[in-house]
Amino acid sequence: MSRILGIDPGLHITGWGVVDYDGFRLRHVGHGKIETSPQEEIGRRLRCIFQQLSAVVEEYAPKEACIEEIFVNMNPASSLKLGMARGAVICCAGMCGLEVAEYTPNRIKKSIVGVGHATKEQVSLMVQKLLNCGSVKLDAADALAVAVCHAHHRVSYKVIA
Amino acid sequence: MSRILGIDPGLHITGWGVVDYDGFRLRHVGHGKIETSPQEEIGRRLRCIFQQLSAVVEEYAPKEACIEEIFVNMNPASSLKLGMARGAVICCAGMCGLEVAEYTPNRIKKSIVGVGHATKEQVSLMVQKLLNCGSVKLDAADALAVAVCHAHHRVSYKVIA
Repeated sequence: MSRILGIDPGLHITGWGVVDYDGFRLRHVGHGKIETSPQEEIGRRLRCIFQQLSAVVEEYAPKEACIEEIFVNMNPASSLKLGMARGAVICCAGMCGLEVAEYTPNRIKKSIVGVGHATKEQVSLMVQKLLNCGSVKLDAADALAVAVCHAHHRVSYKVIA
Repeated sequence: MSRILGIDPGLHITGWGVVDYDGFRLRHVGHGKIETSPQEEIGRRLRCIFQQLSAVVEEYAPKEACIEEIFVNMNPASSLKLGMARGAVICCAGMCGLEVAEYTPNRIKKSIVGVGHATKEQVSLMVQKLLNCGSVKLDAADALAVAVCHAHHRVSYKVIA
């Protein structure tokens, strides 16, 4: 049995989702989001992400972690912010003793919906179907999607941390 | 007496410098750099920065930390990398219980050299003079410079973490 934590990092909202995989079946364990206020100083926001994600790891005790690989196509200011959030998340997972695997958005979509260019809504719907877990908001859906993708590919995954 | 840790974050090289300030005099305590290999996976590099900086904090026990504010003028890929390094550094300082102050490059240069547009070499030379600490490589010089700047401005600084 493998317990997998999927993370969708963002400075404003970091989604997370936990699934169990026994080699045959997927089971939804939990999901949620860590939200920080743009009114707060950047350092406090990063610390908040680090601490709340640490609490998730403590509560659910996942064995492996995974995130979506970033496709850099935005402006430098957004990249810097997203980079800081990713830095906090990857450090947190690493400091909690978790290996972090990384998957491209296309690979994640393919493993969930069957095609690489699915919409966010399609991914969300398929995640709910696959995990039979009721309604899931978009942020946590992306995190659950990468966890499901990792469950399917974990034999050949690329460890980044 | 205040012990200040200045940090110059970078994914490849993160410089750090520690100074003591008693309200009148500055004293050089230590400096160094944390280097990570571009051959390593990003997560391992971030964890390395986090862990080695934690070790610096443990060894020198600074009371305050400070970094240079980023001037975003590069491409998104570089911003993302620098962002991740900053995320690791700011999280590390925060998790070590340190407040992190942030200063613009111009303010730092002004407080060291007297003008806002000094070269890296001028900053390095003035840092060595001010701290009477012998030769300092450029990376650590920038970190010591922000620590000196913080010593001068710490009454009115802007806490970001």
